[in-house]
Amino acid sequence: MYSFKNDYSEGAHPRILTALMESNFVQENGYGEDRYSEKAIELIKQRLDQANVDIHFLSGGTQTNLIAISAFLRPHEAAIAASTGHIFTHETGAIEATGHKVIAVETTDGKLTTKHLRDVLIFHTDEHMVKPKLVYLSNSTEIGSIYNKEELEQLSHFCKENNLILYMDGARLGSALCSAENDLQLSDLPNLVDAFYIGGTKNGALLGEALVISHHHLKEEFRFHLKQKGALLAKGRLLGIQFVELFGDNLFYELAMHANRMADRLRKEITKAGHTFLSHSPSNQIFPILPNSLISELQKKYSFLIWEKVDQDTSAIRLVTSWATKEEAVQEFIEDMKKTVE
Amino acid sequence: MYSFKNDYSEGAHPRILTALMESNFVQENGYGEDRYSEKAIELIKQRLDQANVDIHFLSGGTQTNLIAISAFLRPHEAAIAASTGHIFTHETGAIEATGHKVIAVETTDGKLTTKHLRDVLIFHTDEHMVKPKLVYLSNSTEIGSIYNKEELEQLSHFCKENNLILYMDGARLGSALCSAENDLQLSDLPNLVDAFYIGGTKNGALLGEALVISHHHLKEEFRFHLKQKGALLAKGRLLGIQFVELFGDNLFYELAMHANRMADRLRKEITKAGHTFLSHSPSNQIFPILPNSLISELQKKYSFLIWEKVDQDTSAIRLVTSWATKEEAVQEFIEDMKKTVE
Amino acid sequence: MYSFKNDYSEGAHPRILTALMESNFVQENGYGEDRYSEKAIELIKQRLDQANVDIHFLSGGTQTNLIAISAFLRPHEAAIAASTGHIFTHETGAIEATGHKVIAVETTDGKLTTKHLRDVLIFHTDEHMVKPKLVYLSNSTEIGSIYNKEELEQLSHFCKENNLILYMDGARLGSALCSAENDLQLSDLPNLVDAFYIGGTKNGALLGEALVISHHHLKEEFRFHLKQKGALLAKGRLLGIQFVELFGDNLFYELAMHANRMADRLRKEITKAGHTFLSHSPSNQIFPILPNSLISELQKKYSFLIWEKVDQDTSAIRLVTSWATKEEAVQEFIEDMKKTVE
Amino acid sequence: MYSFKNDYSEGAHPRILTALMESNFVQENGYGEDRYSEKAIELIKQRLDQANVDIHFLSGGTQTNLIAISAFLRPHEAAIAASTGHIFTHETGAIEATGHKVIAVETTDGKLTTKHLRDVLIFHTDEHMVKPKLVYLSNSTEIGSIYNKEELEQLSHFCKENNLILYMDGARLGSALCSAENDLQLSDLPNLVDAFYIGGTKNGALLGEALVISHHHLKEEFRFHLKQKGALLAKGRLLGIQFVELFGDNLFYELAMHANRMADRLRKEITKAGHTFLSHSPSNQIFPILPNSLISELQKKYSFLIWEKVDQDTSAIRLVTSWATKEEAVQEFIEDMKKTVE
Repeated sequence: MYSFKNDYSEGAHPRILTALMESNFVQENGYGEDRYSEKAIELIKQRLDQANVDIHFLSGGTQTNLIAISAFLRPHEAAIAASTGHIFTHETGAIEATGHKVIAVETTDGKLTTKHLRDVLIFHTDEHMVKPKLVYLSNSTEIGSIYNKEELEQLSHFCKENNLILYMDGARLGSALCSAENDLQLSDLPNLVDAFYIGGTKNGALLGEALVISHHHLKEEFRFHLKQKGALLAKGRLLGIQFVELFGDNLFYELAMHANRMADRLRKEITKAGHTFLSHSPSNQIFPILPNSLISELQKKYSFLIWEKVDQDTSAIRLVTSWATKEEAVQEFIEDMKKTVE
Repeated sequence: MYSFKNDYSEGAHPRILTALMESNFVQENGYGEDRYSEKAIELIKQRLDQANVDIHFLSGGTQTNLIAISAFLRPHEAAIAASTGHIFTHETGAIEATGHKVIAVETTDGKLTTKHLRDVLIFHTDEHMVKPKLVYLSNSTEIGSIYNKEELEQLSHFCKENNLILYMDGARLGSALCSAENDLQLSDLPNLVDAFYIGGTKNGALLGEALVISHHHLKEEFRFHLKQKGALLAKGRLLGIQFVELFGDNLFYELAMHANRMADRLRKEITKAGHTFLSHSPSNQIFPILPNSLISELQKKYSFLIWEKVDQDTSAIRLVTSWATKEEAVQEFIEDMKKTVE
Repeated sequence: MYSFKNDYSEGAHPRILTALMESNFVQENGYGEDRYSEKAIELIKQRLDQANVDIHFLSGGTQTNLIAISAFLRPHEAAIAASTGHIFTHETGAIEATGHKVIAVETTDGKLTTKHLRDVLIFHTDEHMVKPKLVYLSNSTEIGSIYNKEELEQLSHFCKENNLILYMDGARLGSALCSAENDLQLSDLPNLVDAFYIGGTKNGALLGEALVISHHHLKEEFRFHLKQKGALLAKGRLLGIQFVELFGDNLFYELAMHANRMADRLRKEITKAGHTFLSHSPSNQIFPILPNSLISELQKKYSFLIWEKVDQDTSAIRLVTSWATKEEAVQEFIEDMKKTVE
Repeated sequence: MYSFKNDYSEGAHPRILTALMESNFVQENGYGEDRYSEKAIELIKQRLDQANVDIHFLSGGTQTNLIAISAFLRPHEAAIAASTGHIFTHETGAIEATGHKVIAVETTDGKLTTKHLRDVLIFHTDEHMVKPKLVYLSNSTEIGSIYNKEELEQLSHFCKENNLILYMDGARLGSALCSAENDLQLSDLPNLVDAFYIGGTKNGALLGEALVISHHHLKEEFRFHLKQKGALLAKGRLLGIQFVELFGDNLFYELAMHANRMADRLRKEITKAGHTFLSHSPSNQIFPILPNSLISELQKKYSFLIWEKVDQDTSAIRLVTSWATKEEAVQEFIEDMKKTVE
């Protein structure tokens, strides 16, 4: 049984494990004040072409989202998210548990626009309602779509004009930036958003997200929030070492490109076989609509999510590729698909 | 510069890294539902001689404390802790951030007694005050002392009688259980406390604590709390693999015993050299009182915490040993100490 | 300028003020333990035909909702409400501020059905999502509709089967129970819902809501929550005295009936004048759709909310009547409306 | 049985009830935007000799404390209070329930000094601990003592230098300001503290505290917090009308002076009778130490709190006087005391 269920089914890229081995007996300070974390921060700053940001390493996406958002907001302020946004549906009310409402907006493609934001601001008129203050984007989104530069610039402009904090969930930022349709650079982000994170867990690390805070006002005393929410690892080196490996050369990008290539191949062959897709998703998650009989057949050898029922005879499934996805597995999946169709 | 600052200066025991290597490309379910985590749970249950407990793996002590305590308590209920307790002083108000007061009790040795608890209950008379509901112990404590079986039985009995939840922070449980003065078994704990955790981070793991919930009522829907607080790692296997290694044989105990042996040697030689100690600490943290001149001399080659000023000429320092502490380093420290004294 | 903006524009029914005068120098215990509060509780229990409920007096609707809901739920549990529900839109995220998500459901008439609840339960599958646990109804709803007995019985049955807490916001319960279309008795409520409150503020009191908890498990230690959230008034007598007045005889009902009669008259005459309504609202809030020119004319003498734009030429307004609404004002409004039309 | 248990045993000063009567049928805006509240704000600003403050009316002390403190602090920040401070012991963890630790300081007289504050700042060194940010004073304190101008100036200076927010709980501010030993003016307070409240409930109102925010940065969007925590009364007029009455002339001061006069008389006669006091309390709460036999005798006719056991034969009791305390009752108490002694 080969799994296309997600991009965190395996361990870590072998270079990361080797780096852990090699550094294992070096004594370091705890809680993220080790030299590996410091070096990783420097390397990422170089990639961002920005010395003037703060960078912190955390263990996972939900943790990063909840700590960043609760640190940034005052008690009466709320986040705005697409209704498909991870914080709205799949984090067990983590943001609300810190006291903040998430205002959900219906979208067709998982992406927010300035139109959405304007409507929310118009609706929230006074102190009997929460104050919308932070805009939560994910790139790529939970349904595989990505923001292009112009879209992000418009959102950025709108947020600055309306005194909104713009925050990007980058759990799958690698895949987004390496998409064939992408025109954003990593170094664009500190200028366009107030804070974002670079996802390591879903791009080859054992665990780890690098939170980048570019808005000066949001940086203040952030480590208190990390500690208070249980995110400061005693052996913070574990995160530092991994990001040194990912950003010491191009490993971060290479892993994302591999994932995308595997998704591209699946997309292309599924298209060729005459199937359509639930959404336009030029990243490492694709949502083909397949006949239920074909799905049943494929489930014998592959695991993946049934995303939603489309009509009587067909359903959309979700196929996710990763840095670890094997070319042969993709090839075999394609052949099995074709075979079944015949 | 050799560090005796803490027990998390190095990486992980090499067998753990090897296990990560070997399992790296096996595909597993995410979020702690992988086969390694399942196996680790079985192994720990065997050690506990208890099938009827729930076990969850988390990333660190603060995270475990805050999730357990906030899951166990209703909004008006409070935790009782020694004023030296980690949740009271060194977790940035993590428990209060979940809405619960921590009632601090002054102790001489970092250990709570039924006398302390009774006084707290008597003081809290009605709904104008919080309701004391959970008792937080650490074993070993933050100042190196340990609970013996009789002490823990008395606390357990008192808590049952008074409908209090008894919770043990086991960040350094390995060292406590392997202390020369210990008479507790790991398998005693599920009978004596309602929940506790077995610390991995400070005993040879990269990160990881195993939370054991024995009180039936506290088990319910616990994974919701893990997710909501950002503690469910996508690659939960990372925690499972490590605990399989620690509890597949006696590695957990061997590592703690090594740490204790190193502390014992330091303690013995420091005593021999005529110095006294701030507290009785038969575990891997010791607090010798040394002349300031000697401390200055030692600081040239070793790093450690100055714990507190004792009088004009002497201070207590904290020396912590671990699974990774080198015998030669200990030997050299002892010699340097003697040399300086002469 | 006469106001139809809401049902809290005036002070209190004169009998309440007289009762405050008469009791003014009697010394009483504080914090709701006075003899007036005790008597009021007894009187309400008689009306409910239920000795076995707990009753607490609070100062307002938002306060009552947030204290009840946060006391009833564990951290990972959520409330379900209509998207028009007061807790979802007009309480500044009060429920979320206590840590709980409010799951909103779109409705046509402000009323929840078992179909809505079932859909929510089906959607929330596991620990990556909140657990829906409490159902929030308002009766009458924020848009004037009311629940009939059969509807409430179905909801009650569904909630019991699915282990959901059923909670009713009764800010305007008086008006609902006195509606011409109502077939519910006050004494039905303890059997059908787990907790509800009887609104005093909008039915003739200076301030005050009587929270009735019928589900045994939810009663426990409730006064701690009142105190913790700042709801225990030192002079709790202020609330008790008012509810003694409202429920010592039929004052509560008489006041609601007056409000409804005033709304009925407005509704009837507006209908007669050929206008339609935004919603079916047989209670003290009505939402006629009027030509914008007529609205402008009426605004010269009356204040009321413009609820929403309906088309180019017409808008829905909200007219609210109360115990204090003067018959002559209603008559004059009707005449002005007719006059303008001509 | 005459009560000296507290200063909220009766209703309100009759002028307040009359004012409620007279204004009863005037239609007003809700939620504190009525003309009475506006006028009360103007009157208080005049008394403060300060136009540049924000004033909000709330229902009680716990509510005011929890809303102000939670609005002023970021998640990792904590309040400092005397261990006798109301927020530390008698508000059911209300501050912690909003996420913030209260750091308690032991004092001899219920009053904080710069020495206390300095020690707290020195102790809290880094992000593993909360950040002390707000200083909570009560004046008069919970044990009857008051701050003089020099003490408050020193605290104010220290707080400004150390970027701490200085907040004063004025539940009994009237009694403090009218004490024979007081040298503070109400108009000093906006210059010396960042926010404080003027207690109405314990000085002749049915309920009501006037929160004054003088620090510009703390004023922002404060009404959101009021609404979110359930403190915006629909009929906010109820609070406004009362403060118009209290500050329209000297009623506020007259009521406090009466309370103090009654306490002074008790203090003087108790002293004359040869008894001592637990604390120096020149306000409306006194704590005489009396023989247990005398206490038993007095309890037959009077209710009051037994504050603490002093030795085998004597205990300290708490006697509280108020605007409503009757001279004859005081006289009778004194005579009964003397009689019993003989």
